[in-house]
Amino acid sequence: MSFIEKFYRISQKNSSYLCVGLDPHQNMLPEHIHKQENPITTFNKKIIESTSDLVAAYKLNYAFYLSAGKKGVEALEETLDYIPKEVPVILDVKAGDIANTMTHYAKGFFSYTRVESITVNPLMGEDVITPLTVFKDKFFFVLALTSNPSAEDFLKKDSLYQKIAEKINIWGSQQFGAVVGATNNEELMVVRKLMPETLFLIPGIGAQGGSLTDVMKNATGRDHPLILINSSRGIIHKSRGEEYHTAAREAADTLRKEINSYL
Amino acid sequence: MSFIEKFYRISQKNSSYLCVGLDPHQNMLPEHIHKQENPITTFNKKIIESTSDLVAAYKLNYAFYLSAGKKGVEALEETLDYIPKEVPVILDVKAGDIANTMTHYAKGFFSYTRVESITVNPLMGEDVITPLTVFKDKFFFVLALTSNPSAEDFLKKDSLYQKIAEKINIWGSQQFGAVVGATNNEELMVVRKLMPETLFLIPGIGAQGGSLTDVMKNATGRDHPLILINSSRGIIHKSRGEEYHTAAREAADTLRKEINSYL
Repeated sequence: MSFIEKFYRISQKNSSYLCVGLDPHQNMLPEHIHKQENPITTFNKKIIESTSDLVAAYKLNYAFYLSAGKKGVEALEETLDYIPKEVPVILDVKAGDIANTMTHYAKGFFSYTRVESITVNPLMGEDVITPLTVFKDKFFFVLALTSNPSAEDFLKKDSLYQKIAEKINIWGSQQFGAVVGATNNEELMVVRKLMPETLFLIPGIGAQGGSLTDVMKNATGRDHPLILINSSRGIIHKSRGEEYHTAAREAADTLRKEINSYL
Repeated sequence: MSFIEKFYRISQKNSSYLCVGLDPHQNMLPEHIHKQENPITTFNKKIIESTSDLVAAYKLNYAFYLSAGKKGVEALEETLDYIPKEVPVILDVKAGDIANTMTHYAKGFFSYTRVESITVNPLMGEDVITPLTVFKDKFFFVLALTSNPSAEDFLKKDSLYQKIAEKINIWGSQQFGAVVGATNNEELMVVRKLMPETLFLIPGIGAQGGSLTDVMKNATGRDHPLILINSSRGIIHKSRGEEYHTAAREAADTLRKEINSYL
C-alpha cells in the first residue's frame, strides 16, 4: 500500500491529523532511561506504544540519529521496526541533489522498508524530483515555505515559495506533498490556493510559536483536511518523569482533539 | 589546522587545484575488484595511493556510500582513514536544516574526524548557517549556482543565485565557500564579483559539459585562484581494467596541468 493510501486510512481510523516527531533530545530523556542499553530505542518504544492509536504518521529526524553514532543508527532501525505497519513513516532528511545522486539517497533511505516518505529540498529544481518518480509507492514532502525567521532571506523574497508551490502542484499530489511552516495567514492561503490537492506537512505549531487556529482556517483543503500537523518536543518531552509516556499520550490526544475541533 | 589553511598549503605543495570525487559507481568498478571483501574500499585505496600527490582535496559523495548499506558506511570510514592527513576532505551531503537539527548534522558528519568540510543547502536562509559557525576549523561549501538544466526553475529565476552569493560573501570566506557549477560566462563573472574572496568548489567540468576555459577565465580570484575543480568519473572510472589506478593518475595529472596552464 502506498504512503498516501496508508495516510488516508489511518487518519480516518484514528481520527487524527497529528504527526508525532520522534526526535528525542539526549539531554531531555527521563533519568531512569539512561541506564538502558539503548536509551533512545527504549524511550521511543514507550512513546509509540502510548500514541500509535492517536496519530496519522510518525516523523523521524535523521540528524538526531546520525549524531548519536552507531547507537543512533541502531535506534533508528529498532524504532522503525517497532512502529505498527498501519502507521505511515516519514524520515526527515531534506535531501536535495540531482540525477543518480538523488537515486542513491532514495535507495539508501528506503533500504529501511518502513520509511515510506522522505522530505526533499527542491533548490536545484525539477532535476531533484525526476529521479524520485520511479519510487511509485513512496511519498516526498518538498520544502515549500518555512516559518523560521530567515525564511525571509530567500524563500519569502520575490515569492520563491510560490514558485516552488506551483511546481509541487505540477509534480502531482499522488507522490508529492509540501512542507509548509505555520506562518502568517496570507501565506498559508496562498500556498493552499496554489496546491489545492496537496498534502501539507506542517511543523512550527506550539514550541515554535505557530497558531493552530490560523493553520486550520487557512491551510486545510476543501474536500479533505490534507494536513499533517507535526509536534515533537511538546509531546515526547512533555514530562521527564518515569510516566513520560502517559504525559505524551495526554498531550498527543489533546492536540489531536484540538485539531479535530476545527474540522 | 583548519580546512582552509590545509587547502592553501596542499594546493601550493602539489601545485594543484584539482579535487578528485571519490564516488565509485558499483557497475563501473573493475571486474577483479568485485572479489574483494569490500570492493569500494579496495578501489578507493588504489585511487588515493596513485593521486594524493596531485590533488588539492578529495570529495566524497555521501549518497553513494549510504546506498551501499553497512558495507558502504564501512567503506566511507576506511576511505577517510586512508587519505593522507595533509589533504583536506569534503563530504558532499548538501545538508540544509535549522537550529539544533543543523548542529546534529554537523556533529554527525564531523564525528568522522577526517571530514573537514561539508556541502550545505542554504534554502532556509541564514538560520541554516548560524549553527555552523561554532565549528571553527571546519569549512562549508554553500550551494550557490548549479549547472543542471533545472537550475532555471529557482536558482536562476529572479537572480536567486546572486542573493545567495551576496549572503555567502557576508558569512565570510574563512568558513564559507560556494558550490558554483561550470555554467555560462556571464553568471561565473557575476558570482566571482559578488564573492571576491570566496573559495569555489566547481563541479560540472567534462562529463557534465562545462568548459574549463570559461571557468578559468571568469571564476578565478584576483590574488589567488580560489578554486577547486571537481572531477569524479572522468578520473576514477577512466579505465575499468586492472590498471585503473594508473589511468586515474594520468587523467588527474592531465587535468591538473590543464588547470595550471591558465594560471
